[in-house]
Amino acid sequence: MTIWEKQYEVLGNVLSDRGVDVEAAKESLKQQVIELPSWGVGNSGTRYGVFREDGAARNIWDKIEDCAEIHRVVGVCPVMASHVLWDVTDDGRYTPVRDYAAERGLRIGTVHPNTFMGQEFRLGSVCSPDEATRTSTIEHFIDCVRITREMGSQVIGIWLADGTNYPGQDHLRTRKHRLFEGLKALYDAMDPDMTLAVEYKYFEPGFYTTDLMDWGMSFMMCSRLGERAKVLVDVGHHPPNANIEHIVSILLDEGRLGGFHLNDRKYGDDDLMAGTVNPLQLFAIYDQLVDAARDPATSAGAADVIYMLDQSHNVEPSIEGIIQSVMNTQTAFAKALLVERDKLTAAQQVGDVILANRTLMEAYELDVQPLLKQMRVEMGRHPDPIIAYREDGYARKISQERAGAGIGALGG
Amino acid sequence: MTIWEKQYEVLGNVLSDRGVDVEAAKESLKQQVIELPSWGVGNSGTRYGVFREDGAARNIWDKIEDCAEIHRVVGVCPVMASHVLWDVTDDGRYTPVRDYAAERGLRIGTVHPNTFMGQEFRLGSVCSPDEATRTSTIEHFIDCVRITREMGSQVIGIWLADGTNYPGQDHLRTRKHRLFEGLKALYDAMDPDMTLAVEYKYFEPGFYTTDLMDWGMSFMMCSRLGERAKVLVDVGHHPPNANIEHIVSILLDEGRLGGFHLNDRKYGDDDLMAGTVNPLQLFAIYDQLVDAARDPATSAGAADVIYMLDQSHNVEPSIEGIIQSVMNTQTAFAKALLVERDKLTAAQQVGDVILANRTLMEAYELDVQPLLKQMRVEMGRHPDPIIAYREDGYARKISQERAGAGIGALGG
Amino acid sequence: MTIWEKQYEVLGNVLSDRGVDVEAAKESLKQQVIELPSWGVGNSGTRYGVFREDGAARNIWDKIEDCAEIHRVVGVCPVMASHVLWDVTDDGRYTPVRDYAAERGLRIGTVHPNTFMGQEFRLGSVCSPDEATRTSTIEHFIDCVRITREMGSQVIGIWLADGTNYPGQDHLRTRKHRLFEGLKALYDAMDPDMTLAVEYKYFEPGFYTTDLMDWGMSFMMCSRLGERAKVLVDVGHHPPNANIEHIVSILLDEGRLGGFHLNDRKYGDDDLMAGTVNPLQLFAIYDQLVDAARDPATSAGAADVIYMLDQSHNVEPSIEGIIQSVMNTQTAFAKALLVERDKLTAAQQVGDVILANRTLMEAYELDVQPLLKQMRVEMGRHPDPIIAYREDGYARKISQERAGAGIGALGG
Amino acid sequence: MTIWEKQYEVLGNVLSDRGVDVEAAKESLKQQVIELPSWGVGNSGTRYGVFREDGAARNIWDKIEDCAEIHRVVGVCPVMASHVLWDVTDDGRYTPVRDYAAERGLRIGTVHPNTFMGQEFRLGSVCSPDEATRTSTIEHFIDCVRITREMGSQVIGIWLADGTNYPGQDHLRTRKHRLFEGLKALYDAMDPDMTLAVEYKYFEPGFYTTDLMDWGMSFMMCSRLGERAKVLVDVGHHPPNANIEHIVSILLDEGRLGGFHLNDRKYGDDDLMAGTVNPLQLFAIYDQLVDAARDPATSAGAADVIYMLDQSHNVEPSIEGIIQSVMNTQTAFAKALLVERDKLTAAQQVGDVILANRTLMEAYELDVQPLLKQMRVEMGRHPDPIIAYREDGYARKISQERAGAGIGALGG
Repeated sequence: MTIWEKQYEVLGNVLSDRGVDVEAAKESLKQQVIELPSWGVGNSGTRYGVFREDGAARNIWDKIEDCAEIHRVVGVCPVMASHVLWDVTDDGRYTPVRDYAAERGLRIGTVHPNTFMGQEFRLGSVCSPDEATRTSTIEHFIDCVRITREMGSQVIGIWLADGTNYPGQDHLRTRKHRLFEGLKALYDAMDPDMTLAVEYKYFEPGFYTTDLMDWGMSFMMCSRLGERAKVLVDVGHHPPNANIEHIVSILLDEGRLGGFHLNDRKYGDDDLMAGTVNPLQLFAIYDQLVDAARDPATSAGAADVIYMLDQSHNVEPSIEGIIQSVMNTQTAFAKALLVERDKLTAAQQVGDVILANRTLMEAYELDVQPLLKQMRVEMGRHPDPIIAYREDGYARKISQERAGAGIGALGG
Repeated sequence: MTIWEKQYEVLGNVLSDRGVDVEAAKESLKQQVIELPSWGVGNSGTRYGVFREDGAARNIWDKIEDCAEIHRVVGVCPVMASHVLWDVTDDGRYTPVRDYAAERGLRIGTVHPNTFMGQEFRLGSVCSPDEATRTSTIEHFIDCVRITREMGSQVIGIWLADGTNYPGQDHLRTRKHRLFEGLKALYDAMDPDMTLAVEYKYFEPGFYTTDLMDWGMSFMMCSRLGERAKVLVDVGHHPPNANIEHIVSILLDEGRLGGFHLNDRKYGDDDLMAGTVNPLQLFAIYDQLVDAARDPATSAGAADVIYMLDQSHNVEPSIEGIIQSVMNTQTAFAKALLVERDKLTAAQQVGDVILANRTLMEAYELDVQPLLKQMRVEMGRHPDPIIAYREDGYARKISQERAGAGIGALGG
Repeated sequence: MTIWEKQYEVLGNVLSDRGVDVEAAKESLKQQVIELPSWGVGNSGTRYGVFREDGAARNIWDKIEDCAEIHRVVGVCPVMASHVLWDVTDDGRYTPVRDYAAERGLRIGTVHPNTFMGQEFRLGSVCSPDEATRTSTIEHFIDCVRITREMGSQVIGIWLADGTNYPGQDHLRTRKHRLFEGLKALYDAMDPDMTLAVEYKYFEPGFYTTDLMDWGMSFMMCSRLGERAKVLVDVGHHPPNANIEHIVSILLDEGRLGGFHLNDRKYGDDDLMAGTVNPLQLFAIYDQLVDAARDPATSAGAADVIYMLDQSHNVEPSIEGIIQSVMNTQTAFAKALLVERDKLTAAQQVGDVILANRTLMEAYELDVQPLLKQMRVEMGRHPDPIIAYREDGYARKISQERAGAGIGALGG
Repeated sequence: MTIWEKQYEVLGNVLSDRGVDVEAAKESLKQQVIELPSWGVGNSGTRYGVFREDGAARNIWDKIEDCAEIHRVVGVCPVMASHVLWDVTDDGRYTPVRDYAAERGLRIGTVHPNTFMGQEFRLGSVCSPDEATRTSTIEHFIDCVRITREMGSQVIGIWLADGTNYPGQDHLRTRKHRLFEGLKALYDAMDPDMTLAVEYKYFEPGFYTTDLMDWGMSFMMCSRLGERAKVLVDVGHHPPNANIEHIVSILLDEGRLGGFHLNDRKYGDDDLMAGTVNPLQLFAIYDQLVDAARDPATSAGAADVIYMLDQSHNVEPSIEGIIQSVMNTQTAFAKALLVERDKLTAAQQVGDVILANRTLMEAYELDVQPLLKQMRVEMGRHPDPIIAYREDGYARKISQERAGAGIGALGG
C-alpha cells in the first residue's frame, strides 16, 4: 500500500464520519468533461513577444494530437474547443477535422468565431462604425455555423474584441444596437440544436469601453436572443476584486450560465494556469456549481455548463501548463463535492457566521490529492498526469518532429 | 464690464462660430434640478470618527433650513432628498416636513428607506436569513410609502446595505430570491404615481458579497418589478476603473436610468465632492445625458432622470462642500451642452478617432465659468455661490445657534 | 485513536517520506507568538454603524480578560497589543495595566499611539498644516513612550491617519517634511531598547493622498530614522491585487520588516478574519518568512518579526473571530513549514516553472489540521479552540456581566 | 483678429488680474522639450494583433523622418528616444544615426536597452535564474553604453520585463540581489556624464511578481547605485487608482525624479494618448513639477526631468496620436503654469480646503488653447499641429513611399 493509498483510506474514514459520500464525489469527478483549448497548445505570448517552443503545434492536426495526448494522461478531456481562425484548414472543410479528432478519441467542443485578427477590425467587428466590416463579420458568423456543424459541435462561443479607446470615439448607444444586431444574426443562423455562449470582458483590447463588458451586458443580450443563448464566464475577465462566484450563482439561478473559460489572474486578463493565484476562489465557484446541481430548480442548467480551459502560456511548457490546470480544476471540484451541505445550510439559516464559514473551509482544507489519484487509477490513468506526461516521451517526440515551427500567432 | 463678462462675450463668439446655441445651453442649465441630500448637512465622517461642525444641522428642520440656504445661493436646488431614519420627526408625521420645506421654497425629493441602522441588520435586511428582520424591513418599506406620500414626493430610492463578509456565510441564490421578494413588496405597496430607484454598490459594508452589486443586478430586478422601477447610479459605487458613462448610456438606451447620486471617488466609496477626482468622467456622463436628451428614442427617459448629490464631508464644511459640488456638476453639464454634436457624429461615422475625441475635448477644454456666472446672474443669484455663502453670514448664524450639536450619526 | 490522530499519523508518514521534519515544524508553531488586538474585542463596525455585542469589552480591564480567554484556548497569544486612546485608564497610569495583564498570563505588546480620534485631526496629525496640532501630536507621541515603558513593552506601532482629500488641499512636499519631523521626534524620544514599527496604508481615511501610503514611503522614513525603525505590514493596506509576499521578501532582505497586522480583505481595508479571502496569499507570506528564517543573512531579522492580528468584526462575534484568525494563521504557517525547500530550490534554479510551483503547492494542499490539533493537545489545549470557547461558558458569562455596554468607539 | 486671438487677449486680462505672468508661462512652454518615442511611429498593437498602417516607419531612418515631421508641426520635440533593439542598424554603428538625426534637426535622447525580445528572456534578463542570460544581458547593457555614446546621448532608460508568473517560480530575495547586480554593472559601465533612469512597472509581462514593481523599489536601487541613477515614472505603470502626483512630489523632494514616460490609462498599461483618460491627473503631475521648479530646494532636480512620450497606438494613426499627446501635455503644463501659487499656499496654510482646491481648479478650468496657439505662432508654427499635419501631405507621402511595410514588431 503506497502512502497516498493510506491517505486515501483515512480520508475515506474522515468523509464517512462527516456523512459525505466519497464514491459519489469520485463519480462526479470522473464524469466532469473539461474542454481543451486548441489555441493553448501553440505558441503564445504577451504583446512583448512570443516565446516559442520547439514542439509547439503547427496546425490544427498537431493541436488535435496534443489534446489527445493531454486527454491520454488526464482522462477527463475528450473534447477540444476551437478558435476558427487559428484552426484553419487548407481547403476550408472541417469534416476531416472532426474525423481526425474522432480517430484520436476526441470530439470538437465549443467553436469560437474570430473577430479580431484582421486589419478591418481596427474599430471593432459587429460594433464597428464601418458597415462593410459589420457585414463581413456577420458572414463569418454564418460560416462558423457551418464549421461548427461540420465539426460535429453544437456550441458556438463568442468573444468580441469590440470596444473603443477614447472618449467620443464612437456613439455608445449605437454600438449597443449594432452589438445586438450582430449577435442576433448569429443566433438566428444557428441550427436549432445549437447553443450560443456569450463571453464578456472588462477591458482589453478596448481600453476605454468594451461593448460586452460584464455579465450584466451578456445577460441582457442573451435574454433577448432566446433560450439557447447563455453567458460564458472567463475567470480573468473581471474588474479587480470581483466576486466571480457571486456572478456564477446569479447565472445559475437564472439558468443562463453557459460555461467557463477557466484560468487565473492577479492583475488583468493574465491567462495563468487555473487555481494558481486564488485557489479558494476556484473552489468557491465550484461550490456554487455543486450546490446548484443538487437543487431541482437549477440542476438542469448546472448539468449543461461547459468547462473550458483558456490559458496563455508564457513561461511554462504549454502542454504541461494545461495538464496542471486540469489538475488544479479537479482539486477545486473535489473539495466542493466534499462540503457538508446540510451542516452548512443549518449554520447559514441560524446566522452562525463562524460555523458556516468553517464548514465550507473544512472541505477546502482537506487534502484531496489522494482522492484524485485514486480516481485516476480507477480510470486507468497514472495517479499524477504531469509525471505520466514527463515520462512518456511525447514532449521529446514533438520537439524533434516539429522543430522549426513556432511562427505561430499570438494567443487569445 | 467685468472681466468675466468680457470672457462671456468672447465665449459667445466662439460658440456661435461653432454653431452652438449658447442661449439654449443656458436655458438647460437653469432648468436642471439638483436634489440636495438632507444627510449631507449634518455631521459625517469615516469609520475612524466623525468630525463635528458647530453649525451642523441637528434635526430635520435644521436640514431644511440649510438646504434652503444652499438653494438661495445656487438657485437650482429647490428639492431636498431624505433618508428617513436620519430625518425622523418626533411624532412620526411628515406632512409638517412638507409644509416647512414649502415655506422655505423647497419640496421633498427622493425618499430613502433605511435598512442598516439597527442591530437587527447585522446579517442584512430583506436578504437576511432572519425572517423577522425581513418582515420588519418590509414593514418599514411600506411605512416609507406613507412617509413619501406625506412628504409630497413620488420617488423612493432604495439602497440596501445587504451583503456577506465570508465565503459560505449565506446561501447566495436564496439571498437573491429574498432580495426580489423584498423589493417586490415595496414596489407593490407604492402608489401608482410613484417611482422606485434601485441603487447598487460594489462593496461596503458587505466585504465578500453585496446583494445588489452592480448595474446588471439592479437592472434585472427593475426589469422584473415593472416599468416604474429604475436604476440609481451612485458614481462612487463601482469597481476600480469602471466606465460609468458606458453604464449610463446603456441604462438610457433601456429607459431604465432612474437617477444619480453624484459625488467623486478615487479608491472606494469616498463620497468626495462631485468632479474633484476626474472631472472628465463627470463631463462624459453628462455627455451621454445630453446626447440621449436629443434623441427621440431616449429623450423621455432622459428627461426623468433625477440628479441628487450624495457626499460625506470630512474635511471641508458641509454646506460649502455641497455648494461646490453643485458648481462642479454645472461645469460638467455646461461643457456637455456645448459639444458640437453634428461634427462629433460625422467624425465617429467615418472612424476618425482623433477628430472625434478632439471634438468632444474641444467642449471640455472650454472655460465655462463665465457662462455659469452669467446664468446665475440671470437667475438673480451671485455669480459665485461660495462667495455669496461666505459673505451672507449664514455660517456664523448657525454656528452660534446650534452650538453644542454634533452628536449626529455617521453619514451614509 | 481518533480519526484526526490517524490522519496525523499518516501525515507524519507523508512528511518523513518527503524529508520534512514534522517535529521541528510543530515546535515552530508552538513558539510563534501572535499578539491580540485589544481593540478587536470591543464593539466595532463600519461607517454605517456599530454592531453591539452584549458581552463586548467595556474597558481595558475587560479587554485583558478577553485576551486572556483567547490565549487560554489557543495557547499562542500571551501578548496583547494596545491602542492607547481606546485603552485609557482613569488616572493615566499604565503600570496597573501591566500588572493586571501579568496576573492573567499576558504581557503588553505593541503600543499604538492614536492620532485620529479628535477634532483637531481634521487635516492630519503630524502632517497637519496646523502647528498646534503637530505639537500636541508629538506630545502625545512622547507620552506614548512613557505609557509603553509603564506597560512593559518595547515596541511602538505607528499608523497615521494623515492624508488629504482633494487636489491642492495641502502642499505635498511640505507634508513629507512634517511627516519625517514627527516620526523623528517620536523615534528620538524612545528608550534605547525600543523599536518603532511604521505602518503604511494606501488610502482611507485620506481619499486623495495618504502621507505614508506604501512600503516604499515607510521604508524611506525608517532608513532615515535609524536601525530600530522598521516597517509594519498590514495585509489590508495595499492597492488592489498587490503582491504582498513580494513586499515582505524585500523588507526581510533589508532587515526592515517590523511586523504584521494580520487580517484579510477583498476590496478596501476590510479587516476580515485572516486567511478568509485568499489563504494562498497568507501561505505565500509565511513562505517568505520561513525561507528567510533559514537563511543566515536574514534569520535574525525574521526572528524579530511581530505578528499582530488587526481585524474589525462586524458580523461574527469578536472573540470567535479572533480565535478563528489565529487558527487560520497557524494553518498558513504550518503549510509553509512543510515545504520541501531543497526540492523547491532545485526546481527554481533550473527554471522548471511547473515543478517549482507544484512543490510549493504540494505543501499548500496538505491538510494540516491534524498537525495543528496534535500541537494544541501537546500544549495542553483543546484540539479545536472554537469548540473549546463555545463550550467553556465564557461568552455567556461576559454577556451577562457586561450587559448594557456597547457604547464603544468604532474599530480601527 | 481671429477669435482665438480675442480669446487670448481676454485670457491675458484675466491672468494679469490674477497676478499671473502670462509671458513667463509662454516662455516655459516654449522651452519644454518632449522626447518622441522612436517606437511610437512604427506599427504597434495588443497581444491580439498588430494594426498596420501603410505609412508606418520601416526602420530607424524612417523613424527619424517621422519624428522630424512631428517636431516640424509641434516645435517642442527636437529629441527622439530610442529602443535599441527596435532601432537596429545594419552594421551596428550608431554615429550615422546621430548624424542623420542632426540633419533632420533632431538629437537622440534617452536610449533604452531591450531585455525582453528574445527566447532567452523567458524567465527574465538580469533576474533570470539562468546565469548565461544574466551575463549576456549585462553584455548588452555595456554595448548600450557604447550605442548611447555614439548616438550622442547621455541618458540610458532601463525598463526590465523581469518578473515571475507563479508562486514559487523563483526565489524572490535572490532575484532582488541579481537585479541590483545587473543594474550596478550597467551603472558602473556608464560614462561619467551619463544618467540612468530606472523605470518600474506594477505588472505585465510578469503576472505574479515584477522585480521592479513600484517607485519604492526603483528608488531603493537608485539610492544604492549612486547620484546619477534616478527614477523613471511611466504614467501607466501603477496599481489601479494610484496617486501618481504624490509619487512625483516625493521623487522631486528627493532629487530622484529622472523623467517620465507620458501616456494615459484606465485599466492596465493601456499606453493611450496622454491626458485622454484623466487630464486632471496630468495637470496635477505638472502642478508638482511647476511648484518644485520654483522652490530652490528642488529646482535643480526639476530642471533635469526628462519628458518622453510612450504610447502604443492601436486605433488612431501613430503620428497623429503622438502630435495629440504633445498637445495634451502642453495643455496640462500650461494650466499648471497659471496657478495662483501665493493664493494657493495661503489657503493651504490656514486649512481652507475649499479655497485651496478651488484655487488649483481655477487654473485647471481655464481655456488655455488660445495661449498655446499664440505660443505656437510665436515659434513659427501653425496654431493647430494636427491641422498642420493633415494639410502638409506628409501622411500621403509616406503612405505611398512605404507601402508594403508593416511587418513591424509589437510596440513596447
